[in-house]
Amino acid sequence: MTDREPSPVTVLGLGPMGRALAGALLAAGHPTTVWNRTAGRADALVSRGARRAATAAEAVRASPLTLVCVIDYAAVRAVVEPAADALAGRTLVNLTADTPERARAMAAWAGQRDVDYLDGAIMTPAPTIGGPAALVLYSGAERIWRAHRDTLASLGGTADWLGADPGRAAAHDVALLDVFWTAMHGVAHAFALARSEGIAAGDLAPYAKGIAGLLPDLVDDLARRVDSGDHTADVSNIASSAAGMAHVVEAAEAHGIDSGPLRAAGAVADRAIRAGHGGEDFSRLTQVYAAGA
Amino acid sequence: MTDREPSPVTVLGLGPMGRALAGALLAAGHPTTVWNRTAGRADALVSRGARRAATAAEAVRASPLTLVCVIDYAAVRAVVEPAADALAGRTLVNLTADTPERARAMAAWAGQRDVDYLDGAIMTPAPTIGGPAALVLYSGAERIWRAHRDTLASLGGTADWLGADPGRAAAHDVALLDVFWTAMHGVAHAFALARSEGIAAGDLAPYAKGIAGLLPDLVDDLARRVDSGDHTADVSNIASSAAGMAHVVEAAEAHGIDSGPLRAAGAVADRAIRAGHGGEDFSRLTQVYAAGA
Repeated sequence: MTDREPSPVTVLGLGPMGRALAGALLAAGHPTTVWNRTAGRADALVSRGARRAATAAEAVRASPLTLVCVIDYAAVRAVVEPAADALAGRTLVNLTADTPERARAMAAWAGQRDVDYLDGAIMTPAPTIGGPAALVLYSGAERIWRAHRDTLASLGGTADWLGADPGRAAAHDVALLDVFWTAMHGVAHAFALARSEGIAAGDLAPYAKGIAGLLPDLVDDLARRVDSGDHTADVSNIASSAAGMAHVVEAAEAHGIDSGPLRAAGAVADRAIRAGHGGEDFSRLTQVYAAGA
Repeated sequence: MTDREPSPVTVLGLGPMGRALAGALLAAGHPTTVWNRTAGRADALVSRGARRAATAAEAVRASPLTLVCVIDYAAVRAVVEPAADALAGRTLVNLTADTPERARAMAAWAGQRDVDYLDGAIMTPAPTIGGPAALVLYSGAERIWRAHRDTLASLGGTADWLGADPGRAAAHDVALLDVFWTAMHGVAHAFALARSEGIAAGDLAPYAKGIAGLLPDLVDDLARRVDSGDHTADVSNIASSAAGMAHVVEAAEAHGIDSGPLRAAGAVADRAIRAGHGGEDFSRLTQVYAAGA
């Protein structure tokens, strides 16, 4: 923490996440200017002390630092290109979710226009912003990160700088979404399977929570094996996982349940087995995925 | 707990799990008879006091209760059919993993031969057996469960009876394997994506653990919505999850990573969106899965 006055910040885009960002900045005492294509979205923030700008360029000129959080990077371009002259010499922190490649392209756009640029990835839902559970990852030039880290701390929780490559935050973002949404599809499919067998989701849930609770430790174990390249099996192996998944697919499809994701995962395991890796640890599948279909 | 002497138990099948079961029974003081097609697998157990039987039928005759744990139900049939006469009037607890349908078929087989039958599903790895972390689910006639629950408690941890339907334990098993292996494939794929972006698995792991740690609470939330049928979205919806997954697929495929499971999951989400559910909670996907491809 510093003794400085909270510095002015501009927020472009007032969807649920943009409103949460502006709300956290107001709560931390930052003079906050907001702009949204649909101006009415700002009403509640204005009543809490935010200043409403008529254009994105006007909003940008109000602060040394502008945050933008919209639906994707095409929307970012539509918002910031008319404000490019205003952004020159200022800092843009793009908290919109998209791919690493588009984050790098956005950084290149900013570099050509003398705009200091950080790319950020918000890893926790809007209600966490401003509180201890928030997690936001940043990448881009360290000089820019250092200049604004105190202000960005007002968004709450954990704010990690991951390195100079502007695509690095987005790369973490997509990899973590991968873990999250794949697992969530597994849970939704499992509930479909349970209900087809007359088991309410609420009856399966205590056991499913127990299974899900095993994952954090397994993530560490898998990571060690992936990075070391040692896929020697201990307790289970790819062949036993494939046998288990085949039972799941058979049971689900007997009830007409779409099991496309499991079939596709099974195809990857089968490819590993055909290549002679059936007796190895599950971690080997990271290589099999990387080698392509 | 009771004051009775630990009663004799037979274990058929001495793979890693069968050996763990017999070891836990020996540790709890049960006179334990073991049999395996490859007799040498019993050596360590015999040195700890187990009795080695020459045939499965001889093993079965040594105890009122026989546990069988082999690779699948086809292997169970091969083991128990030659011992069917010996099993008549005794109890068989089948701890082999397979589908609910085959569990019911096995129960019918046992019923026709005057064999008391419970179907069990071991939800935790072999090293947990006998200790507090073990979780074994059972289903079948309550009378049979009550007669043997004290003995089965020697396998450690939690032993839950789920109801009279002999397929119910296996139905839980496949649904929980569904959660587990789908999530594990997500982690393996995420590490492939991270590494393609120059991020070591060990660098992603702390964040991936944080994401995985969110799942238990989300399982409860999803279960409530699935059972109530109220899929009103709060924080995120199917359309936003699909947009996130599309970024994952695009980023992964840009590096040549096989993203079949994510594409298949995305197809389910797209079907939900086309049916007008894009603004609803992710829980709606359970219904979309259940409706088939």
